[in-house]
Amino acid sequence: MEEAQQTIRAAAGTDSNANSAERPRGRFPRRGHFGRAQRGRGRAEPRPETRTFGAGRDKLRVVVLGGLEEVGRNCTLLEYGQDIIFIDMGLQFPEEDMPGVDYIIPNMSYLRGKERRVRGVIVTHGHYDHIGGIPHTVPQIGNPPIFALPLTSGIIRKRQEDFPGAHLNVKTISVDDRLVLGSFQVEFVHINHSIPDAVGVVVHTPIGTLVHTGDWKFDYTPADQKPADFIKIAQLGSRGVLTLMGDSTNAGQNGHQVSEREIAHTLRLIIEKAQGRVIIGTFASMLSRIGQIIQIAQENGRKVAIDGFSMKTNVEIAKELGYIKIRPGTIIDIKQVDDYPLNKILVLCTGAQGEKNAALMRIANNEHRSVKLVPGDTVVFSSSIIPGNERTVQRLKDTLYRKGAEVIHYQMMDVHAGGHAKNEDIKLMLLLFKPKYYIPIEGNHFLLRENAKVAASIGFPKENIFIADNGQVMEFTRGEGRLTSEKVPSNYVFVDGLGVGDVSEVVLRDRQELAADGMVVVITVVDAKTGALVGKPDIISRGFIQLEKKKELIEQTRERVTRLIRDRDPQSAADENLIKSKIRDDIGQFLFQKTERRPMVLPVVIEV
Amino acid sequence: MEEAQQTIRAAAGTDSNANSAERPRGRFPRRGHFGRAQRGRGRAEPRPETRTFGAGRDKLRVVVLGGLEEVGRNCTLLEYGQDIIFIDMGLQFPEEDMPGVDYIIPNMSYLRGKERRVRGVIVTHGHYDHIGGIPHTVPQIGNPPIFALPLTSGIIRKRQEDFPGAHLNVKTISVDDRLVLGSFQVEFVHINHSIPDAVGVVVHTPIGTLVHTGDWKFDYTPADQKPADFIKIAQLGSRGVLTLMGDSTNAGQNGHQVSEREIAHTLRLIIEKAQGRVIIGTFASMLSRIGQIIQIAQENGRKVAIDGFSMKTNVEIAKELGYIKIRPGTIIDIKQVDDYPLNKILVLCTGAQGEKNAALMRIANNEHRSVKLVPGDTVVFSSSIIPGNERTVQRLKDTLYRKGAEVIHYQMMDVHAGGHAKNEDIKLMLLLFKPKYYIPIEGNHFLLRENAKVAASIGFPKENIFIADNGQVMEFTRGEGRLTSEKVPSNYVFVDGLGVGDVSEVVLRDRQELAADGMVVVITVVDAKTGALVGKPDIISRGFIQLEKKKELIEQTRERVTRLIRDRDPQSAADENLIKSKIRDDIGQFLFQKTERRPMVLPVVIEV
Repeated sequence: MEEAQQTIRAAAGTDSNANSAERPRGRFPRRGHFGRAQRGRGRAEPRPETRTFGAGRDKLRVVVLGGLEEVGRNCTLLEYGQDIIFIDMGLQFPEEDMPGVDYIIPNMSYLRGKERRVRGVIVTHGHYDHIGGIPHTVPQIGNPPIFALPLTSGIIRKRQEDFPGAHLNVKTISVDDRLVLGSFQVEFVHINHSIPDAVGVVVHTPIGTLVHTGDWKFDYTPADQKPADFIKIAQLGSRGVLTLMGDSTNAGQNGHQVSEREIAHTLRLIIEKAQGRVIIGTFASMLSRIGQIIQIAQENGRKVAIDGFSMKTNVEIAKELGYIKIRPGTIIDIKQVDDYPLNKILVLCTGAQGEKNAALMRIANNEHRSVKLVPGDTVVFSSSIIPGNERTVQRLKDTLYRKGAEVIHYQMMDVHAGGHAKNEDIKLMLLLFKPKYYIPIEGNHFLLRENAKVAASIGFPKENIFIADNGQVMEFTRGEGRLTSEKVPSNYVFVDGLGVGDVSEVVLRDRQELAADGMVVVITVVDAKTGALVGKPDIISRGFIQLEKKKELIEQTRERVTRLIRDRDPQSAADENLIKSKIRDDIGQFLFQKTERRPMVLPVVIEV
Repeated sequence: MEEAQQTIRAAAGTDSNANSAERPRGRFPRRGHFGRAQRGRGRAEPRPETRTFGAGRDKLRVVVLGGLEEVGRNCTLLEYGQDIIFIDMGLQFPEEDMPGVDYIIPNMSYLRGKERRVRGVIVTHGHYDHIGGIPHTVPQIGNPPIFALPLTSGIIRKRQEDFPGAHLNVKTISVDDRLVLGSFQVEFVHINHSIPDAVGVVVHTPIGTLVHTGDWKFDYTPADQKPADFIKIAQLGSRGVLTLMGDSTNAGQNGHQVSEREIAHTLRLIIEKAQGRVIIGTFASMLSRIGQIIQIAQENGRKVAIDGFSMKTNVEIAKELGYIKIRPGTIIDIKQVDDYPLNKILVLCTGAQGEKNAALMRIANNEHRSVKLVPGDTVVFSSSIIPGNERTVQRLKDTLYRKGAEVIHYQMMDVHAGGHAKNEDIKLMLLLFKPKYYIPIEGNHFLLRENAKVAASIGFPKENIFIADNGQVMEFTRGEGRLTSEKVPSNYVFVDGLGVGDVSEVVLRDRQELAADGMVVVITVVDAKTGALVGKPDIISRGFIQLEKKKELIEQTRERVTRLIRDRDPQSAADENLIKSKIRDDIGQFLFQKTERRPMVLPVVIEV
């Protein structure tokens, strides 16, 4: 830790040199109020004529490796001359058509052979969609230093314990630090999100300044820390920003994001009013909310029992680093909940998305060792529902209502606010940073488009908004930028168990096929010389049909296989592949005709 | 048809007799304003003292076989003495943990041996969650007559064409008809929903009147037909209703359901304003909306091209029966869209839920034969998103935005209204029918609870609200009811391809296991006498890992199998099952240790 801080201070010491390099210098005629500041600076500091657009090394390449076609696996790469830096390396949770996949990480193929040029990985905040790829990807790119604020680096280090073997070089920095990473000079700007220590990243390059918002919202009355640093944002804006990369997660939603204070107000009312226990399910990642709930519990004389591994871990890290202030005796072990009166207990837990085996699910299903639901318990879902989880959350709610719990969720009361900017927030951010170019990031394609619409609605020139795909290269040189057609590899890398990248499209297709109609193994033993069948064919099936109820179908299938082998062309006797493909086609078709299902047919031919 | 109508008229002819039987006669002291009317009638027509609660055949049994723990497979059974009638026989779409299942239907086990007592199946409206079980379930219960209004019976008949072999006895009735079905006298009440001919069912029994709302909302300005028949509802209420069974789908949502006229207004504005084509995706089942959109297109001089098999079929039925009025020349074949200027075209299609291969998906993916998206096209999602479909809809939106289409969905403008009652509607229904008992139906358990809360909020006595589970028997006798603990079979019956009920929990579990980590088949040939291995074991895997990249893993697995067979206890040489279970356990564990995946291991031992 100490070493890391020194490194930073050393970097910070180069400030005066850095300053001259951090300003954009290009001449870029603009319309509207965006980019005016740059133009002013550009004139003041002309550069040699030779350094024109696209020329040699005086070019900034920006590539988003993940987060432009999805929510998750956020990862941005900046390349200038021989220097490469990264902003975030997140993971993405799998879609429904990716059975068995644990998560998806950014593709690092582009970095092969360029490992020595990677100067560092900067992390905007401690959420898994921003840090989750690190254990897999950082070793692949030469183990560069990782720069993160204290809470973020605490979470990265904690997660790394699950990956013994690999050692990361995590450097803890403060929001006021400046880093010099090759040609890049990096500073930070405090913004609001649902976890403390979330920052925007300001990267000064020889050809101009690029700002990456990270995940952000503006909150005038946040749960923790201070409101976003509007002054610094405005100052940066007045000095000139070439490009802003901005979070699209909630783009297209009207108005401003709700303040955490509003949520605290509602939660306080619920907790004060509750006659029995209050059980609050939320995301382990929403540390600001968690800190606030513990605070309210303390005010109301309730003990707080925390359950869910990730939540306990996060609270511990945040407490240790001073991000959550907890009076001694407030937190109790979950096993002690029955030692206190019902109205003196607040349970904070994971599982508000209906995740199997998470705390709230176990409580609902009567599978929790310490917490048994009783009528009079109030269960609060202090979270939104992630798309794809709606049905499991419905089932969880069914079970809770069945147990007589009073259930409160965000559609009924303001018990949740998102961590992301809505339309009006985005407008203000754009008006303060006044970038010349705007790159919507972090969201499905349609969200990027919605983000672009917001910018256009306040007069941002459409041609200066780049809606890129994952891996698509954007080039900037002295105040001018363009979206090129060059693409670097960005396809999915699946993590499944210990395997990284060994689940291919073929493996996934097979899993889908197996899931839909199961499979049938057809085993035949044939005489190696004559090709004649030895004994009867064997049929094994799984996930297809209750075969014991369909004895006739098995018998017919056997007969068909027998006939297939008996009747085939004697000249092809020795061709095992031909027999197999015949069995596959014929039996597949036969079974479809009989059942309208298409199990995977696996022929096994054994020659003896 | 003619025969059916006569049957009904004959039944209707018994009205004068029926009238004396249709009124409740019990004495039931009540509090509040619910049920007062019944008390009045009850005093006026006393019944012999012998017929007391629970006595003999003078008992109405109400069992909901599907729709109390889910949205879908709605099915209610009424039993009085030797008479049984059904209201609706729907299907339910599968959950995520039911891979490969087409749909789920109600369980008819209770009816085994009672087939001759089933007097009829009454259908409230033509949606699949109310009619979809019919082809499978009606033949199981002795093929009783099905009673439905014209549009509903048209849809039932059309669907039956997919099930040749079976012949249904569908009798088309009018909303003013009365049926005599054994001890039951049935009449209907017009309500509003998203399809014409939706009715509530009023069942007069010797011990009182039961009303089943079907799917309903109140719409003072509906798209088609008239507002709900408030007068008839109030009259029935004043004559005394023992029990009301009411739709819970949108219970818990504040306010009144939006009128279809509001939606028409928004759609009209969009269609008028659009410079290019308008493509509207909606449910094929929302025939009222579809009729309205065709109407607006006509007003604006746009031709309407319809795509999606179910939508085309439904429009044809509705047009033929006079439910949708279309001027000649309005509807064009989808292949003709390019024959007209862009602003003269409206495409109506299925696929707004992101269904694979549905029309809108094919249009978005450039796989549609006739409709290629061009910038300037407006795509309207005139539907909500069914829980579970959020991610596929997001992907569909991505593709549409990518093609440059202007996308409008219900979160942006009022382009969709649900077909179900919200809290205020439910209150009015209760105040008009004034039932003594209230049975929330049609919804997940938590929705039933929300529905009950709405009733309680206007003073409905909580003990008179029955929140039952599927299959749970409710008994009513002369004005008194109770929720018993008796349960009739109601577990899932899966339909998969041609198979009904042959997908068991085991088959589903296997499919889930196969989907998660695929499978590995281990094939060994052993000498039948000595038990010694003949040749090398064979390993085949699917959906597990890219084995070509893991040659070493295969080799190790082979060696392990070889060792297992070589080292086993010679006394158990002949026990094939023991070898198999050893291979399954040992290889399963080995592969988990190497990969942290748990493929299904299928050992095949062949003795030669």
